[in-house]
Amino acid sequence: MSSILRGGRLRATRRDVVEFISSVEDDKRIAHATVIVNEAHVLALAKAKAISRKDAHCLLRALRRLERRLPLRKGAEDIHVLIEEYVTKQVGREVGGQLHLGKSRNDQVVTAIRMVLREEILQVSDELLHLERQLLSLARRHVRSVFPGYTHIQPAQPISFAHYLIAICDAFLRDNERLLETYRRVNRSPMGAGALAGSSFNINRRLEARLLGFDGLVENTLDAVGSRDFALEALSVLSITALDVSRLAQDLIFYSSEDVGLLIIPDEFTSTSSMMPQKKNPDPLELMRAKCARIAVNYAAGVTIAHSLPSGYNLDFQEITPLLWDSLDTLKPSLKLLAGLVPGVKPDSAIASRGDLQYTTATEIANILVRKEDIPFRTAHRAVGYAIRNAMKSGKTLTDLTSGEWELVIGRRLRRNTIVSIINTLDLATHIGYYRTKGSPNPRQVTAMIQSRTERIQSMLKGTERARATLKQTLTYS
Amino acid sequence: MSSILRGGRLRATRRDVVEFISSVEDDKRIAHATVIVNEAHVLALAKAKAISRKDAHCLLRALRRLERRLPLRKGAEDIHVLIEEYVTKQVGREVGGQLHLGKSRNDQVVTAIRMVLREEILQVSDELLHLERQLLSLARRHVRSVFPGYTHIQPAQPISFAHYLIAICDAFLRDNERLLETYRRVNRSPMGAGALAGSSFNINRRLEARLLGFDGLVENTLDAVGSRDFALEALSVLSITALDVSRLAQDLIFYSSEDVGLLIIPDEFTSTSSMMPQKKNPDPLELMRAKCARIAVNYAAGVTIAHSLPSGYNLDFQEITPLLWDSLDTLKPSLKLLAGLVPGVKPDSAIASRGDLQYTTATEIANILVRKEDIPFRTAHRAVGYAIRNAMKSGKTLTDLTSGEWELVIGRRLRRNTIVSIINTLDLATHIGYYRTKGSPNPRQVTAMIQSRTERIQSMLKGTERARATLKQTLTYS
Amino acid sequence: MSSILRGGRLRATRRDVVEFISSVEDDKRIAHATVIVNEAHVLALAKAKAISRKDAHCLLRALRRLERRLPLRKGAEDIHVLIEEYVTKQVGREVGGQLHLGKSRNDQVVTAIRMVLREEILQVSDELLHLERQLLSLARRHVRSVFPGYTHIQPAQPISFAHYLIAICDAFLRDNERLLETYRRVNRSPMGAGALAGSSFNINRRLEARLLGFDGLVENTLDAVGSRDFALEALSVLSITALDVSRLAQDLIFYSSEDVGLLIIPDEFTSTSSMMPQKKNPDPLELMRAKCARIAVNYAAGVTIAHSLPSGYNLDFQEITPLLWDSLDTLKPSLKLLAGLVPGVKPDSAIASRGDLQYTTATEIANILVRKEDIPFRTAHRAVGYAIRNAMKSGKTLTDLTSGEWELVIGRRLRRNTIVSIINTLDLATHIGYYRTKGSPNPRQVTAMIQSRTERIQSMLKGTERARATLKQTLTYS
Amino acid sequence: MSSILRGGRLRATRRDVVEFISSVEDDKRIAHATVIVNEAHVLALAKAKAISRKDAHCLLRALRRLERRLPLRKGAEDIHVLIEEYVTKQVGREVGGQLHLGKSRNDQVVTAIRMVLREEILQVSDELLHLERQLLSLARRHVRSVFPGYTHIQPAQPISFAHYLIAICDAFLRDNERLLETYRRVNRSPMGAGALAGSSFNINRRLEARLLGFDGLVENTLDAVGSRDFALEALSVLSITALDVSRLAQDLIFYSSEDVGLLIIPDEFTSTSSMMPQKKNPDPLELMRAKCARIAVNYAAGVTIAHSLPSGYNLDFQEITPLLWDSLDTLKPSLKLLAGLVPGVKPDSAIASRGDLQYTTATEIANILVRKEDIPFRTAHRAVGYAIRNAMKSGKTLTDLTSGEWELVIGRRLRRNTIVSIINTLDLATHIGYYRTKGSPNPRQVTAMIQSRTERIQSMLKGTERARATLKQTLTYS
Repeated sequence: MSSILRGGRLRATRRDVVEFISSVEDDKRIAHATVIVNEAHVLALAKAKAISRKDAHCLLRALRRLERRLPLRKGAEDIHVLIEEYVTKQVGREVGGQLHLGKSRNDQVVTAIRMVLREEILQVSDELLHLERQLLSLARRHVRSVFPGYTHIQPAQPISFAHYLIAICDAFLRDNERLLETYRRVNRSPMGAGALAGSSFNINRRLEARLLGFDGLVENTLDAVGSRDFALEALSVLSITALDVSRLAQDLIFYSSEDVGLLIIPDEFTSTSSMMPQKKNPDPLELMRAKCARIAVNYAAGVTIAHSLPSGYNLDFQEITPLLWDSLDTLKPSLKLLAGLVPGVKPDSAIASRGDLQYTTATEIANILVRKEDIPFRTAHRAVGYAIRNAMKSGKTLTDLTSGEWELVIGRRLRRNTIVSIINTLDLATHIGYYRTKGSPNPRQVTAMIQSRTERIQSMLKGTERARATLKQTLTYS
Repeated sequence: MSSILRGGRLRATRRDVVEFISSVEDDKRIAHATVIVNEAHVLALAKAKAISRKDAHCLLRALRRLERRLPLRKGAEDIHVLIEEYVTKQVGREVGGQLHLGKSRNDQVVTAIRMVLREEILQVSDELLHLERQLLSLARRHVRSVFPGYTHIQPAQPISFAHYLIAICDAFLRDNERLLETYRRVNRSPMGAGALAGSSFNINRRLEARLLGFDGLVENTLDAVGSRDFALEALSVLSITALDVSRLAQDLIFYSSEDVGLLIIPDEFTSTSSMMPQKKNPDPLELMRAKCARIAVNYAAGVTIAHSLPSGYNLDFQEITPLLWDSLDTLKPSLKLLAGLVPGVKPDSAIASRGDLQYTTATEIANILVRKEDIPFRTAHRAVGYAIRNAMKSGKTLTDLTSGEWELVIGRRLRRNTIVSIINTLDLATHIGYYRTKGSPNPRQVTAMIQSRTERIQSMLKGTERARATLKQTLTYS
Repeated sequence: MSSILRGGRLRATRRDVVEFISSVEDDKRIAHATVIVNEAHVLALAKAKAISRKDAHCLLRALRRLERRLPLRKGAEDIHVLIEEYVTKQVGREVGGQLHLGKSRNDQVVTAIRMVLREEILQVSDELLHLERQLLSLARRHVRSVFPGYTHIQPAQPISFAHYLIAICDAFLRDNERLLETYRRVNRSPMGAGALAGSSFNINRRLEARLLGFDGLVENTLDAVGSRDFALEALSVLSITALDVSRLAQDLIFYSSEDVGLLIIPDEFTSTSSMMPQKKNPDPLELMRAKCARIAVNYAAGVTIAHSLPSGYNLDFQEITPLLWDSLDTLKPSLKLLAGLVPGVKPDSAIASRGDLQYTTATEIANILVRKEDIPFRTAHRAVGYAIRNAMKSGKTLTDLTSGEWELVIGRRLRRNTIVSIINTLDLATHIGYYRTKGSPNPRQVTAMIQSRTERIQSMLKGTERARATLKQTLTYS
Repeated sequence: MSSILRGGRLRATRRDVVEFISSVEDDKRIAHATVIVNEAHVLALAKAKAISRKDAHCLLRALRRLERRLPLRKGAEDIHVLIEEYVTKQVGREVGGQLHLGKSRNDQVVTAIRMVLREEILQVSDELLHLERQLLSLARRHVRSVFPGYTHIQPAQPISFAHYLIAICDAFLRDNERLLETYRRVNRSPMGAGALAGSSFNINRRLEARLLGFDGLVENTLDAVGSRDFALEALSVLSITALDVSRLAQDLIFYSSEDVGLLIIPDEFTSTSSMMPQKKNPDPLELMRAKCARIAVNYAAGVTIAHSLPSGYNLDFQEITPLLWDSLDTLKPSLKLLAGLVPGVKPDSAIASRGDLQYTTATEIANILVRKEDIPFRTAHRAVGYAIRNAMKSGKTLTDLTSGEWELVIGRRLRRNTIVSIINTLDLATHIGYYRTKGSPNPRQVTAMIQSRTERIQSMLKGTERARATLKQTLTYS
């Protein structure tokens, strides 16, 4: 227990108890922001004439010094007490004793957390946008590179590698959207809410908010200190992003595995085995997958902590904050590593000619039968399925089937033109040109999608730049 | 395995296997929407000249009949196969065999889920807004009703009951905000994406989207069928809402408990014990608290299912949907019950005069010493704390302390005016008038907050009405 | 609110509130057990002379009738009230009014849950043992069937299919072990604990326990009604079992995928696509995988409900029980389906001769260099790794390498004998005979392991039979 | 990538990739154990004549040096590579290159984790037993101290403080039981399993197990390296223990809150507010409650990581281990703090005489009416409930009720003796003597329970001592 709180209501708190509740280690992250919050509050106190201009000046000078260097004594209760101690040591008890006037750790801590979190959200957003640009850049080179689209981890239909990459990119873009919406709710100021009821000093909360770069207030003072939904929301948005990361990791692991062999991952992003000389293991991707699971579950931890807590401030909140930092510190390096890895990923050159992938044209063959032979789709579907079952049994690819064999399974003579169409469609590169639907792997569609995403990312980057510019005009960067 | 899929690639699936994978029970919820999706698709097929106008007419007539009555055969594989079976039975294999042309269960199911989910989101939003209105309505009656604000489940500072209610209301309003943002991402059409690559038929996806009341497309076809972040996002938003519900439940349980005695809950919302005749248990609130835990954890279940799934459609997705319905079906009755309960909640009439609550004025007493006696806050804080420690030891309330006793602990003579201020501040009803900060319990602040929230809710209601009106102009309600 | 509880402490509870808290739907599962518990309690009351023998007789007759047929009125509060209502209707208020003497819903419900749960645990144990026998039976046929052991989803070292199956079996055996230990803690009687403090009637708790087939008491009466760790423990043990199931499902999906092609799963355990005629999807296994995620997370739901509940009975407990039933009802059919599927699984006949799998002999080649050429392992490891890198680049398998090429990468002349050993080891079937370690894929080791597991399962089956026999001698089966 | 693995299959791994996958920070915990595992393996290699006695001697000397000092280079891949590097530096490439013969990181890491975990389990067990002894010691002083038993956070029936403490103790004892069972499964040796298939060197796995203090083998080599159910089981057992801790914390917070006022917690285990001078907050207990939520959810994280991983070793496992250490490092200090706090907890002296607690005798009053007046329990229950409703309305305690008033609500004249019994039962201290059931708060029952638990703890302590003694005879402590 700090000497500044000792000797009033409580004589003292046991040393080991203080160590148990100490948040100093976790507070490092918010140390600078907390000093800034103190500065804003001092300015508001002076404006409210609650303290003299001279005292305010004195306090600000002391705080500015802490901005640069704030030694964190291990085992101290928390950063808030520490700052007051340091300031008091510098300016004496008369002036230092006013620092905490009209404020509480309750509003101070949540203000500082929001300040750090908003910055972090912008950083994650930047990392995501960077990764998306890498994905699109790779896509640009592979608009016509045939790739099997998978369902149920089985090759399903021919798409292009670019089409796959855009699907991944689009999921990340939605993550960006969510992050931005969360940013708006995070960037509101609880400062001035005191312990939960504000103060009888005329502290201008809007002024404090402006000085600290917030877009508005969390108005109700009880709500301001007693709500952590902004943190849970951030945890959930990071968690959904992590799932998109883990899916990409999973895809890369699977597609580059020896058995599947669709993609080649640069050696320098893999490891070998200490025992088995032949191994090339996708270690960082596996680890990323697992780390994303932890991010995803951090939200559940936040939920369990928050569940059934009563209104008002409870110290349980202190355990939610490290979950945020953990999720951020785990997610950002993963995004960075992916952005480094993606440009080096290469689809195998043999994909377009792999016989086993010809089966993925089955849907289109059924479509041809519908279109050219007036066979109902369900009948065509069955016939093609049956043809493939037989082909597989006798170890044939579809190219191996003669027109006679096709006619046999379909149960009627086929027009010459139909046979030609079937043969053409077996060429996967040609096949992807047949798609006509919006958003499909047809190269024209893909090119258009790449273009529009590129513009979207550009405009999103401008958005985060604007947000950063606003933050820069505040005390934080003074 | 339905006869319509039998005899092609696979001879048949075992009956018990079909029962194991059957989603028919869960599909009930999307049955109507799925029929509508089929109708929109038939219209798009006709427009694309993939089927004749006559066949389209035939199929639509059969589908319209299913709108009204769609018998769900238990143990059938799923609703999609069932619809095709029924239609085929009615219109014959030639025409019915075209129903599935250019579409897949993959796009159809996710389209139907989004259609039902968007409706549900609007319903939850309505229930929330209704509850918020009840909270504000109760608040209006209690702008000047003294209530202790709690931190650490200890009385902390005097607020008003209305101030407390607004804090609760504000959290729910943020839930509304999040729901609306989720709505926007949910209300996009994946239809026309087929299995994952669209189709070689010229199906107009924008037309389908418009017919089904969507605001836009999930453009990339692989993304459209292979992403479930919209569902996870909905689960997380419901989960955060559930935590706000569980907090209100927890508050009501605690505040109405015999020991705390701040609130009275109408008998009709409680139960007694089968053994202990004196018990009045807040059973529904306890259950609600626990149910909210399940809602909160449904998101974690979704996460665990989704984690490390590869791209493309996987049947694992089928297990995510029931989590959505479970969360919705658990949350809505809880909100409804709260909206019924809130108007009957009464604060105890004795609160303002409870001696033990006088300790909550301690902060203001310290403030008075700062303001009137030029004592630094930290010194005043310690002195008041010490005074209270002594008072408690000797079983006194603060009113019992003489000015001499105050002077003793503070260590100096006090001005008469200071003593008067301290005595005034011990009257809790007067005390709440002293707060000057924005968003504080000061009755003027509280009245203004009630007014602005009322307007906000009004405008939100208009928003959901608008959304509903758009939906009504679509096939869904034809 | 049932009429039997109305008009005392509370006038009545609202109808919709009763519906909200009603557990009747979930109570179905414990209905029979609850009747039995009532019977045991009546016997104990008579023994304690708290009620007359005549009244006891009367009550027992009424209860016996309910054993056979207990209509569950939807919307009733719970099964306990319902039983008392029915009995009272039959025997009148004078006698029926004694049914609840000296007991509470608190002890009654947890007793019934434990009775049902212990049965269910034995059932899961049986399903597991049955599956293990199928695994061993399949293993017996494949002691010499070469199979690649995987790490990081890459082929790692040659093992046998039997060796793989035993690894799976062993994990399930540990699940059996855990289930049994949980059974012991579940099978203790809380009955007679009343609301939380027992009773002033001399109710013999040991007698009640014996009548109900319990192995002992949960002695402390507060602990007896207020603890749910037995349920959480069961949820966690089921959850670990589910993870073993999901791993097997994942393996089967992966090994049977078109790209990997190691295993063939019978058609009748798969589905096709409604759009893509060529697909053979492992639908039930994917669904099983996802269902296992839900089981795994049910524990987390239980944890979130239980976390920070105070001591004593809380209605929140009511939400934990359905999690148990859900986990059980999801796990058992999955185990059953696997036991049906396993006997039909076939390893691909070409495995032993697949060139790409020769790389898995790399470790043994390094070992040979250590053994025959006195090269330190780390040097041999590097040389073999390098050889494989080169081989892969030039599209060669290891058989293609000449002794000259081996000598080149190793950097020295090799003895003839070394070369012979290398060539021998490339034959995978021969290779697995080289392992000498206990528990390795060496056929002798594998045969011994199959034998010892078979005996172990035999003895475990006897254990559950014994447990069942004990249960059968109680009132439950009267 | 360490130089020892470079230049074989892979040229090199990128520096930032190595940093990403580096587990060195987490490996600290297993560093010593890993060195010991290497020593045991060297002995086994020598015994198998795979290396010469001289080389073995050389390697052992180098390893012994590392036992004392093992510098962990940040950013190194992992501890395993680091040890081989250090040893090689000391003894040269010829001898050092043999260190990894016949073993893999896969078996080595899981062996070391099990070795550390078994020690930690014993430590948690000790902390638990210590806490239980403190609880029993406090109980001994409060066998006759009246305390209200709570259900639904409402006073329910009179118990003694000792009875409450035993309930808490009993839950912890079950945690001990579970820990011990987990210990048995943890303390099995996977060593010698290599990458997954053992080795062609004749390494004696039993010898290795014995040298490392294990009780037996995880026999199947694939199972040995590819299973983490022992870790998940440990996480779940710690998680259930954490819930028991959080319940105790919750009870202490609630019972010591100003409103409830049943217990007094020593000042030195609380904190005050930085703003509100009157506050005495149970900070460490709130934090403990929240920390226990994290422990509880660590299991869910493990589950999400493990779910749907294929068989064999996957690097995802690396993320499970830190969850273990986190749960242990969070739980142990909490147990220690509780053991320090418990002896200082005091029940309020006024409990026995608090008028509002008289209502808790209601059940016994109903029992008296049954016993002495032959009124059926349900009728008596209603009458007493009604009496209390009226008493509460008019602000009366039960002592205030005249015999006439009792007769009025019961609806008949009562025997004098009945009235006397009712009056006696209102004395809570007398009341607890009336309980007759086994395990009830009756002081005789309570004394007997304290005695038997004391003996049980004694015998459990002997068990862990025995386990420790076995471990001490191994290489670990050499």
